[in-house]
Amino acid sequence: MKFFNNNDATLVFALGGLGEVGKNMYVVMHKEEIIIMDSGVMFPEDELLGIDYVIPDYTFLKQNQEKIKCLIITHGHEDHIGGIPFLLQSVNIPTIYAPNQAVPLIRKKLEERNIPFKGLVSYNENTRIKTKFFDVEFFATTHSIPDSHGIVVHTPNGTIVETGDFKFDMTPIGPNANIHKMAAIGKRGVKLLMSDSTNALSEGFGLSESKVDETLSEIFSQESDSRIILATFASNIYRLKHIVETCRKNNRKIALFGRSMETSIEIAIQGGYIKDKSIFVTPEEAKKLPPNKVCLLCTGSQGEPLAALSRIANGSHKLIKLLPNDVVILSSSPIPGNGLSVSRVINKLYLKGAKVYNNTMLSEVHTSGHAKEEELKLMLRLINPEYFMPVHGEFRMLKRHADIAIELGIPKEKTFILENGEVLSLTKEGIKKQGTVQANDIYVDGNRIGDIGNLVIKDRKIMSSDGILVVIAAIDVDKKKLLANPNITTRGFVLVNENASLIKKIEEISSSIIQKQLNSKSQFNYNDLKYAIVSGVSTFIKEETGRNPIILPIVMNTKKGNE
Amino acid sequence: MKFFNNNDATLVFALGGLGEVGKNMYVVMHKEEIIIMDSGVMFPEDELLGIDYVIPDYTFLKQNQEKIKCLIITHGHEDHIGGIPFLLQSVNIPTIYAPNQAVPLIRKKLEERNIPFKGLVSYNENTRIKTKFFDVEFFATTHSIPDSHGIVVHTPNGTIVETGDFKFDMTPIGPNANIHKMAAIGKRGVKLLMSDSTNALSEGFGLSESKVDETLSEIFSQESDSRIILATFASNIYRLKHIVETCRKNNRKIALFGRSMETSIEIAIQGGYIKDKSIFVTPEEAKKLPPNKVCLLCTGSQGEPLAALSRIANGSHKLIKLLPNDVVILSSSPIPGNGLSVSRVINKLYLKGAKVYNNTMLSEVHTSGHAKEEELKLMLRLINPEYFMPVHGEFRMLKRHADIAIELGIPKEKTFILENGEVLSLTKEGIKKQGTVQANDIYVDGNRIGDIGNLVIKDRKIMSSDGILVVIAAIDVDKKKLLANPNITTRGFVLVNENASLIKKIEEISSSIIQKQLNSKSQFNYNDLKYAIVSGVSTFIKEETGRNPIILPIVMNTKKGNE
Repeated sequence: MKFFNNNDATLVFALGGLGEVGKNMYVVMHKEEIIIMDSGVMFPEDELLGIDYVIPDYTFLKQNQEKIKCLIITHGHEDHIGGIPFLLQSVNIPTIYAPNQAVPLIRKKLEERNIPFKGLVSYNENTRIKTKFFDVEFFATTHSIPDSHGIVVHTPNGTIVETGDFKFDMTPIGPNANIHKMAAIGKRGVKLLMSDSTNALSEGFGLSESKVDETLSEIFSQESDSRIILATFASNIYRLKHIVETCRKNNRKIALFGRSMETSIEIAIQGGYIKDKSIFVTPEEAKKLPPNKVCLLCTGSQGEPLAALSRIANGSHKLIKLLPNDVVILSSSPIPGNGLSVSRVINKLYLKGAKVYNNTMLSEVHTSGHAKEEELKLMLRLINPEYFMPVHGEFRMLKRHADIAIELGIPKEKTFILENGEVLSLTKEGIKKQGTVQANDIYVDGNRIGDIGNLVIKDRKIMSSDGILVVIAAIDVDKKKLLANPNITTRGFVLVNENASLIKKIEEISSSIIQKQLNSKSQFNYNDLKYAIVSGVSTFIKEETGRNPIILPIVMNTKKGNE
Repeated sequence: MKFFNNNDATLVFALGGLGEVGKNMYVVMHKEEIIIMDSGVMFPEDELLGIDYVIPDYTFLKQNQEKIKCLIITHGHEDHIGGIPFLLQSVNIPTIYAPNQAVPLIRKKLEERNIPFKGLVSYNENTRIKTKFFDVEFFATTHSIPDSHGIVVHTPNGTIVETGDFKFDMTPIGPNANIHKMAAIGKRGVKLLMSDSTNALSEGFGLSESKVDETLSEIFSQESDSRIILATFASNIYRLKHIVETCRKNNRKIALFGRSMETSIEIAIQGGYIKDKSIFVTPEEAKKLPPNKVCLLCTGSQGEPLAALSRIANGSHKLIKLLPNDVVILSSSPIPGNGLSVSRVINKLYLKGAKVYNNTMLSEVHTSGHAKEEELKLMLRLINPEYFMPVHGEFRMLKRHADIAIELGIPKEKTFILENGEVLSLTKEGIKKQGTVQANDIYVDGNRIGDIGNLVIKDRKIMSSDGILVVIAAIDVDKKKLLANPNITTRGFVLVNENASLIKKIEEISSSIIQKQLNSKSQFNYNDLKYAIVSGVSTFIKEETGRNPIILPIVMNTKKGNE
């Protein structure tokens, strides 16, 4: 391989996570050893019509699978663990190291897809993983899920630190980040820092989770006469723990709505985060209690149309109808791209008379799990790296993060804003860019991986805006005869029975095109006929309606069957 | 009509603009007279696949067209004038009154659609329109387009004020809002205020346009070595005027990109806003000048994929390639729903090495045209209405605006959060809700109005995520025979030639379903056969792929032609 010209170099690259928020996957390779950090999925942007997930391209790992020592997970969010089932289907991974709280989440994922895997091992901050060339250690960070860690990889060419997702919170709910360990690692000397850029565009220092919890407690006291419906991210176990405690103090029982919320609470109970199980009631029991004795804890804080909160807002939830005095708290911020769906849900809630608290209003009912500018600076100062590579983020975030590092004194030529697949080569002399590995976006649609490419998506795009029109003609080529009027069928273009005259005209035009081709002196050819139908019919339709549906001509020669 | 039980009442309602940002249209009716205020379009949300515009339902106006005295336009934005061509196609409007700057915009719109109309009349702040029952006057407001006005309608049952879109700006570029006239109108007594709610969720007082212009000037001085590419809303003529002046001071020529930008500059020159025509050069001339002597002024500040800025960012613009030192200014904020497209453009610009200024960063290069909380309070204090109806906005905005009015002392029962079509009845005794008129959303797709309903959109939705699969079978019903293997064609599902075995299986399943139906003892029926094909094939596909394409069965009886 092109980049392999220095056998003593340590190579570092991303298969996902650069130029995007999602599908994080970073690879460190030295000679015959590979360590993978994280294995995430990305939820596709709207334009990837019908695609369920985007995953990294595992080709490089497949080709080098005998070198893979382990996959190390920083924490249990989907953009760091969601790719594991797909990865295990195509690449042999001996061991996956994951923090305690991520282990049941990964196990559940593998069970759901019937993937047997014996190599899942939990680690904690004191775990050390040693291979021939690598020595891996961890430091605890704060994030919006318990048990998040930064990874330290000592290599023959220096120490690499990958922060995972992190924030600094001096008054967290749950344990503190281990700032002292970060300082010690920095002191010993770090060659390359790879740090989370998700919030690099936000100035200042993030709000503490304790402040959020104070606000939630205040709302619970103020709204002591109403039913409270609270939607939040299911994975934020510390916030769930606080909500459970607040409900207990305010004498409210909790009913859970949404599968991921049920799973999370179950894991939180197993992990000892939540002790008092008696506070949970079934939705049916909750309905029988007075409204001010209940809190409905649900999914859907991103406006997902099928989640509990959307169904409640629509009035389509089987069990819960909105009451006029209901108080709804969205303890969340819309993830980019979800703004409109969240607005839609809030509008419906207002329309039905509910009182809504969310983060865009005057109340602080959510804080992000990602470090803002001043926190990023703190990480840079603590780790004090020689080289810097911003990770986890769109290019504008990576760019801003690199600028922050430069402001802190890292020379511009020692910061690397890379794309997925671009390789850094670490040697005793320093770090430089050297070659690339294959790192495409792979689409998962339904249960099939990679069979949907851009051609299929292009067709979906056209059909989504203009529909499809099928022209079916039965001909007898020998007799040069159209056997019946062409059949015109359409979906997503116009309703056939409400547009009879338009359909009739399309039928006539198709008919005359076909007859003309059959009577043509040149040799008859199915492709020419199909092309003529598409061209003639689409020109007519464009003029008549201003639209461009896909024209799908199907010509059957009854003597020979279909062509 | 139900609400018509008091012949002396004045009726007020919205046909568009409530519960949404867009398609503003408000109606005031007294006995045999109707005045319409504004006639906007709305750009559809993503889920309205393929729809170009949403317009109000004109049924009520059509049924009452002999009563219509005039349409009065507050200002020239699309959500206030964009519906005029569609309205004139179905309703007879004797006169349209529009402010000076809006007249050429409306004229252009009518010309483009070949709609002859003689009744377009310009008004200014001193114009007065009198009919049998109504006496209409105006007050000048500040907004992000010149010549915006509030409308005052004196009716037999009291005075109604509709603010149009507005903000307060104590140091505007261009003329001041007429606060004194607003105060005088308020002093004389206003029964009902209808006020712009677009920014009701934003605290404080908006940034002055002068501050934006200061920032733009600073960037021009700082970046004196680079080419500047500036994208902004074409309709903000005052900002364009300032940009032209800044370019002149900095010795830069201006090249225009985008049709709406060219139109706006033309109108601004005609209107006397811009005097120095010599500053404009063609794109070809601009290419020959040194980069630091040029400013490219373009459309696309919303990330619209076909607009100039997106093409430049993609590298697909015919004339302009991005240079590594280019400075790009997005003097705009993303309209809700456009956040992702704007991010995408910014990421591409960064990736190509351009320096980007936009409003989310540390620079103030844009301000909204809509009043924030403190400005809304100022309007409420100045007009001092007895009753209040927030307009122009989603429900959460209307709700917040109503709450603001209540904070200022308007009794809750005198504030009305309405939906489109809900009617207020004004009498000497007061105002109450009374009945509704028809106010659906009407879709415009291509050049046809209202022929796309929710069924067609539902089909587009399914095809957009899972595609369509056509099963064509030729049978001989009499002989109970399938004449050939069914033909399977698909778009947006999988690529046929890369998935031959899957397609083969679908062919076999279809074949056996058809044969079974033909051999069945019960009377043969085309609908039963089609239903059996859809049901059997979709079950198989769901299991095999996890997807749900539309299954379109086409069965031809060769003896009788198609069915």
